[in-house]
Amino acid sequence: MIDFQIDPSRYRHWRLAFDGPIATLTMDVDPDGGLFEGCELKMNSYDLGVDIELADAVQRLRFEHPEVRTVILRSGKEGVFSAGANIRMLAKATHGHKVNFCKFTNETRLAIEDACDNSGQRWLAAVSGSAAGGGYELAMAAEHIMLVDDRRSGVALPELPLLAVLPGTGGLTRLTDKRMVRRDRADVFCSTEEGVRGRRAVDWRLVDEVVPPSSWEAKLRERALALAEKSDRPVDAKGVVLAPLQRTLSDDGNVYTHVRATFDRGQRRAELTVRGPGEVSGLDWALLLARELDDAILHLRLNEPTLGLIVLRSEGDPAAVLAADEELEARKDDWLVREIRLYWKRVLKRLDMTSRSLIALIEPGSCFAGTLAELLFAADRSVMFAGTRSSDNRGPATIALSALNFGAYPMGNGLTRVATRFLGEPDSFARARECVGEPLEAEDAEAAGLVTLAYDDTDWSDEVRLMLEERASFSPDALTAMEANLRFAGPETMESRIFGRLTAWQNWVFQRPSAVGAEGSLKRYGSGLRPNYDTERV
Amino acid sequence: MIDFQIDPSRYRHWRLAFDGPIATLTMDVDPDGGLFEGCELKMNSYDLGVDIELADAVQRLRFEHPEVRTVILRSGKEGVFSAGANIRMLAKATHGHKVNFCKFTNETRLAIEDACDNSGQRWLAAVSGSAAGGGYELAMAAEHIMLVDDRRSGVALPELPLLAVLPGTGGLTRLTDKRMVRRDRADVFCSTEEGVRGRRAVDWRLVDEVVPPSSWEAKLRERALALAEKSDRPVDAKGVVLAPLQRTLSDDGNVYTHVRATFDRGQRRAELTVRGPGEVSGLDWALLLARELDDAILHLRLNEPTLGLIVLRSEGDPAAVLAADEELEARKDDWLVREIRLYWKRVLKRLDMTSRSLIALIEPGSCFAGTLAELLFAADRSVMFAGTRSSDNRGPATIALSALNFGAYPMGNGLTRVATRFLGEPDSFARARECVGEPLEAEDAEAAGLVTLAYDDTDWSDEVRLMLEERASFSPDALTAMEANLRFAGPETMESRIFGRLTAWQNWVFQRPSAVGAEGSLKRYGSGLRPNYDTERV
Repeated sequence: MIDFQIDPSRYRHWRLAFDGPIATLTMDVDPDGGLFEGCELKMNSYDLGVDIELADAVQRLRFEHPEVRTVILRSGKEGVFSAGANIRMLAKATHGHKVNFCKFTNETRLAIEDACDNSGQRWLAAVSGSAAGGGYELAMAAEHIMLVDDRRSGVALPELPLLAVLPGTGGLTRLTDKRMVRRDRADVFCSTEEGVRGRRAVDWRLVDEVVPPSSWEAKLRERALALAEKSDRPVDAKGVVLAPLQRTLSDDGNVYTHVRATFDRGQRRAELTVRGPGEVSGLDWALLLARELDDAILHLRLNEPTLGLIVLRSEGDPAAVLAADEELEARKDDWLVREIRLYWKRVLKRLDMTSRSLIALIEPGSCFAGTLAELLFAADRSVMFAGTRSSDNRGPATIALSALNFGAYPMGNGLTRVATRFLGEPDSFARARECVGEPLEAEDAEAAGLVTLAYDDTDWSDEVRLMLEERASFSPDALTAMEANLRFAGPETMESRIFGRLTAWQNWVFQRPSAVGAEGSLKRYGSGLRPNYDTERV
Repeated sequence: MIDFQIDPSRYRHWRLAFDGPIATLTMDVDPDGGLFEGCELKMNSYDLGVDIELADAVQRLRFEHPEVRTVILRSGKEGVFSAGANIRMLAKATHGHKVNFCKFTNETRLAIEDACDNSGQRWLAAVSGSAAGGGYELAMAAEHIMLVDDRRSGVALPELPLLAVLPGTGGLTRLTDKRMVRRDRADVFCSTEEGVRGRRAVDWRLVDEVVPPSSWEAKLRERALALAEKSDRPVDAKGVVLAPLQRTLSDDGNVYTHVRATFDRGQRRAELTVRGPGEVSGLDWALLLARELDDAILHLRLNEPTLGLIVLRSEGDPAAVLAADEELEARKDDWLVREIRLYWKRVLKRLDMTSRSLIALIEPGSCFAGTLAELLFAADRSVMFAGTRSSDNRGPATIALSALNFGAYPMGNGLTRVATRFLGEPDSFARARECVGEPLEAEDAEAAGLVTLAYDDTDWSDEVRLMLEERASFSPDALTAMEANLRFAGPETMESRIFGRLTAWQNWVFQRPSAVGAEGSLKRYGSGLRPNYDTERV
């Protein structure tokens, strides 16, 4: 099992050091600490385990260290920044693991960019030695890249000439869309195994500055302090410790305090139930639920590939969710509230990007309001119970919107889920805005276009059962591809282009004979034999 | 060999009829007229050959029929509009053929949309019977879709439930981005084999109106005339007949009057040389060259998959090209000039979308000016000869821009190639605008960022040879994927999303075992056996 829970006391690959507003995160990968046996992580190459620690560090820096305004990202190894994703791991891993590895590392890079853009915590990549492939992609996630101007330091994306695959973590898109490298230069760069160093790296916009070795440390500190100056993070706030999650993992499901995941392997389905505020409420509830939900989603992605359908449910009092939302909205300028909102934004995007069918069921006793209503809009379909059950004395299910549905949680395309939903229906969008705070029963929710379908007690069981069974009967791959298209209407951003265009092409390449065939590049890497390529273009 | 040249006298699958401003294009596929043996084209299902005729009709309607303002697209078969792409053909075709088939059909749909949006020739889809899969995708290319309100007429995208693949011709993106169907409804629609008919098809935005059978023909004519009213096409202009191209096709290359394609199979390379105006000049030259270049590109795509590298060259007088451009710019409101410009726009986009490495060589005697300079910006790299050759008394090579480089030929992303090139360099963009009409020698062209590299006589031969050999040594698939990303920086449009996100996912699905494996859906279709799906999600 791949576990996404970690803490700094158990890091094998990273070191964190703090100096006032500046944190230094040092990558020093333990070659023997790889997830896969026989894959030695030489030269700061990495696998998913290394990135899980990085993602944890990114997260803790934000929540536990409000005082940190600049994060210096550097290497603890002499002569190499990072050699990128470990190639033997890529050769050994299943297609599904490769795809999910790339997805997760991308999300970690986006979390770094989110910290720079929205959280006042700016990342500075200090590239000394070679930053190749994923190593350079990691540097590109930072706001500013400094490169030592010596003969052995440089940046490269050697995947195409060396391995016949694409940079797996958004590299091509960050080149063209973030760093806005001229496309013919990007073409030359991406097909030059040894990469680019020195002045040319600046001229080509690949790094932001080159610095002579003699003034390296001084310049680094100067830049870090200059970046810190621009931050709006509080000076004397106290961080929030991200305590270990309380959870019980088993073959039948995972139980957290506010999330319950139950697995039905026969039906290839997971049911994910989130619980509204109770003993834990307000901000504490919002943060804890985000953490538990994030872990539950990641667990399903990596450890349960055959559970192709996630049924989303909720339990609790919608009014209590709306009360938490009110606090999240009223105090949004507070650094911690900002972090919680940004975290929910990222968790919801993680759900959007999860290649499982998502069907939300809204029943009496549920609490899909405000922040939790986002789950309905992230779902491929939502089905609402109309009226009450004869055997149940609870009132009819309702859903409700809050102010947070209209700006706090944009999708990767830059729009809110409600706005994306109603791209073709401006009137419906306007009506949705008007009904903020109002509990809507099934008939009204359906008329407002906020749920897909509604059934009453007579039809509910049969219709829902048939829908879930039908979904499970479709080709999992075809669903993956369809959902990757239908979920993201409207505009595209660098982020959505990475997960859409780039990821799809990369997934394609990752199963072509030239890369993964018996004589392909990944299999033959390091063997002394040249790979055999399929010579036909498509 | 697949030939893209055809004319109405040889159509097997379509009928054209004219009635003043209204043309009627009737799809009536000859079941025995398929490209692949054993693939009977039942129920107006189609293969590439059917679409080549359609593309020809779209083209001739624009050039040969200035009087046509509305095109009614309908079926000549009882009870079926079109069953979409032929499934046996998809099961038999190579991966490369499927990919290129989908690309070409998409381009044909885009040409229909270009006619509606820019050419004053509006398409009206008259759906009577079932429009399924590619049949509905074809209807979606029209500006307005009318559906007969009877029990057997409806629209469907049954690919996912029926075949475990995606709609191959932009369907998912047109649903969300063009017709702006709500995503959960799109999800239901795309997983419902039988599709949607009647009123619900309008409510879900799948068609624009439903019409009772009794008033069908009258309503159709009424709508066609109403659309024609809005057109700005000339009333009494004379069309231009698209005469058969003069060409000689051989195993060593294809020779046209203004395009020469030579094939070097050992080096897996095609050299494509375009000739500037001479005896044929001005508008005649512009139209003829566009037609020849279009045919040459399509030939390479479908018939020469192992020629992975296209070297672009030109011969002629840059001043004569700029003179043609001046006419194209000065008379741009003329219907024919508009058509020629729009055609060049489409041909250049065809080149952008061609999955071959494109390297432009600019040598003494070349004429990469204005419209032909677009070839340099469509190329992955351009290399310019600096100075003169000792053995050659021609002056140094120059390139030049014209007004047409700044608006006439937008890429699929909606920006011009120059604007896309300089997304990160606004100063370079401004400088490029200033040098319109000015011949630039290598040093200046390189400094202006308009070419990738320049070499003088000393280095040219070796450097160019090494570059071409190196390119040919890379994995063709990895190049396809890299080029599909680096060529399209900046914004995305419906069109770029179709070719980027959707196409890539579709290519991925088209090689997954669930679709194309021995027990996959395409192999088992019609066998009575259920396909076996890989149950893991990625």
